[in-house]
Amino acid sequence: MERHSVIEKNGEDSKNKEFKRKNSIGIVAARLFDKKGYLETSLKDISTEVKLSKGCIYHYFTSKHEILYFILDAYMDHLLGGLEEELGNIADNSSKIKHIMFRHLMLYNNKVPEARAILVDANNLPEEYYKAIAFKQKKYAQLLTDALSGFFDGRMPVEKSRAISYILFGMSNSIMHWHNPDGPIKLEELSEICYDLFMNGITHYKNNI
Amino acid sequence: MERHSVIEKNGEDSKNKEFKRKNSIGIVAARLFDKKGYLETSLKDISTEVKLSKGCIYHYFTSKHEILYFILDAYMDHLLGGLEEELGNIADNSSKIKHIMFRHLMLYNNKVPEARAILVDANNLPEEYYKAIAFKQKKYAQLLTDALSGFFDGRMPVEKSRAISYILFGMSNSIMHWHNPDGPIKLEELSEICYDLFMNGITHYKNNI
Repeated sequence: MERHSVIEKNGEDSKNKEFKRKNSIGIVAARLFDKKGYLETSLKDISTEVKLSKGCIYHYFTSKHEILYFILDAYMDHLLGGLEEELGNIADNSSKIKHIMFRHLMLYNNKVPEARAILVDANNLPEEYYKAIAFKQKKYAQLLTDALSGFFDGRMPVEKSRAISYILFGMSNSIMHWHNPDGPIKLEELSEICYDLFMNGITHYKNNI
Repeated sequence: MERHSVIEKNGEDSKNKEFKRKNSIGIVAARLFDKKGYLETSLKDISTEVKLSKGCIYHYFTSKHEILYFILDAYMDHLLGGLEEELGNIADNSSKIKHIMFRHLMLYNNKVPEARAILVDANNLPEEYYKAIAFKQKKYAQLLTDALSGFFDGRMPVEKSRAISYILFGMSNSIMHWHNPDGPIKLEELSEICYDLFMNGITHYKNNI
């Protein structure tokens, strides 16, 4: 029994080690894709930047799109991880919406190249890989759609709740194209602006400047 | 005098003819950039699709990025054209904001490949070309920032009004990544949803379902 645990532990360790190695390749590749463009980045560029031989990279990934898939899949897991449980512990729907929005803005801010890759590069994936990512994106968006449906007491047609949830993610994601974290407006304040706008619009905002 | 007018008219005609020819190349190229990606599209692809020899295309453009610049510049002129005068004829700032938003959504809907090229491909331009496009984009965004500053009676810090105007464009632009004009929600209705959200937020919306 003890021996069995040791084997399991060793298996777990080597799995962790493999994930860590893949992850360190992914982080470097995501930065290169963001800087040079996915199509313009070669496996040689990645190998030079990550300081591993091409053969070593091929040990972990069979192609460039496998690296892209790994990056996007890990990013979606990062967005989804624990979110359902967190929402389960929040009672009212406005607070659920606020939690999703602030969390979304905070998480992308720590992984800007990965977040941009989802928006810009995902459509370069072969179809089955793309579908797997789109499936996780839908699952993620559904959590917001559910909170919105709850907020509207189920009286809003579901396509409209879905459109509103896409608009919320759209306004949040667009920020990464122009926001400078070292500029006059910090991310925390920008998250507050986004949330206030989404909840109450500029009319309410005007009366509370 | 008459002869002079004829010369002028002929000059005008040939200028128009040149613009039309450049425009027809631009429309086809924008569709290819959207479908295949800008970097993956060759001048040969464009020449085949537009049914003109490469030599003929070189008569109008010296390089692929000149075609991209022409597309983006024409699109910005399309967005800016007449907007300042239209806004001058609208008295209140809420109506100005509504006008900019509906017009923005209507115009991109007619030129989806060009609108996507602004978001996705503009950063492939050489710096001086990119700056010229960014200058027009800033001018366009400034018209909304001005309407917002007016709406807030000048009591909102200008960086915040600018951030809010970028958020509005961000939410509008994000729509082109998922909206299907033949789906359950038509563009007109979606424009109403965006405007209602931006003005009054989901809280007000909830009370008026």
